[in-house]
Amino acid sequence: MQINLARRIFDINDRVAERLRKVFESSGLLAVNVLGSPGAGKTSLIERSLEHLTNKLRVAVIEGDLATSLDADRLRRFGVPVVQINTGGLCHLDSTMIENVLSEFDLPTLDLLIIENVGNLVCPVRFDLGEACKIVVASLPEGDDKVAKYPTAFSSASVVVLNKMDLKNALNFDMDRFERDLLAVNPAVEMFRVSCCTGIGLDRWVDWLNQRAAS
Amino acid sequence: MQINLARRIFDINDRVAERLRKVFESSGLLAVNVLGSPGAGKTSLIERSLEHLTNKLRVAVIEGDLATSLDADRLRRFGVPVVQINTGGLCHLDSTMIENVLSEFDLPTLDLLIIENVGNLVCPVRFDLGEACKIVVASLPEGDDKVAKYPTAFSSASVVVLNKMDLKNALNFDMDRFERDLLAVNPAVEMFRVSCCTGIGLDRWVDWLNQRAAS
Repeated sequence: MQINLARRIFDINDRVAERLRKVFESSGLLAVNVLGSPGAGKTSLIERSLEHLTNKLRVAVIEGDLATSLDADRLRRFGVPVVQINTGGLCHLDSTMIENVLSEFDLPTLDLLIIENVGNLVCPVRFDLGEACKIVVASLPEGDDKVAKYPTAFSSASVVVLNKMDLKNALNFDMDRFERDLLAVNPAVEMFRVSCCTGIGLDRWVDWLNQRAAS
Repeated sequence: MQINLARRIFDINDRVAERLRKVFESSGLLAVNVLGSPGAGKTSLIERSLEHLTNKLRVAVIEGDLATSLDADRLRRFGVPVVQINTGGLCHLDSTMIENVLSEFDLPTLDLLIIENVGNLVCPVRFDLGEACKIVVASLPEGDDKVAKYPTAFSSASVVVLNKMDLKNALNFDMDRFERDLLAVNPAVEMFRVSCCTGIGLDRWVDWLNQRAAS
């Protein structure tokens, strides 16, 4: 019965996600679902992206958190529409939560909808939000074994952004191992190495996002 | 119906956890449940602890992971009994998983059972494993806002071990904010600041663990 119920939860989620996908496509906007561990730098990456994107693209953000509006507050200063979803302790966003807040946006005027998921490298992976692609943010201090240990997140990603490259010299991070593990589970993935702190590597990432959102 | 089922899952978990708690108490061993984000340093902390504890205490480890036995392999070289639980993608350990592997240990000969949970700062918190205390491992690179953003993990902890203190000078981490947020949700918590890399601060943590496990 537990299995049946879990299947039903996923079925409902997938059905609503398909509806969302059609809405996003017919509105001509790119929806991206940003995943990663707590503290990997999801909000920082969105901040840096907004700095470089807002003049060129019309962007909005949905911010998912267990509690607080700390991250939404960080993003509102960029002058883009930001809607906060507090999950009340739930470990992931689901498609119904997204559908419930969509009326707060004027979708046809948008080029890009960034959805920042709850900080969690496990549960959000299984909940399709109708996005065109999943972006996994990982960071050097988490260690070079993270792809091997959390393969589902990395295999589901269209893009992996490896953040905190500025700490490279302070850490014993085996880049070859990380990349080898990543390509083994996801040969088609795009990878960007960045530092949201110093700005290293962000130009390539922003170019990618600009190009995808404009097409 | 979803709510009722969730309640039943927690009820079953709590019932088994109470049984485990009695088993641990009657065996005279201290069971600790180690939680934290992926890459916070849970396995590293256990490695450093085993280096300092094994001569004094009889220790065993249960290692929880989505997949792989990478962490169990790291710990086996210390010559202590290690049992790996692969959750098959599930985001937390539950009490039934623990009960199912207990027969692999000779419990009355043990002083300390360390249970390393799946890397996840959200879901494992709600699943009591019969432990005497929860140890939350956090790390400086995750950022000083983590207590505010993931309050349940931190409020449920008997101990918070703040790891990667060696990176302090490379990061903009507001220690006052972290501690203020922590005391606000958990005034009775014990906190240790350590670096599993350089060894800073581990003596106090190991003393605490020795003392608790020996009493």
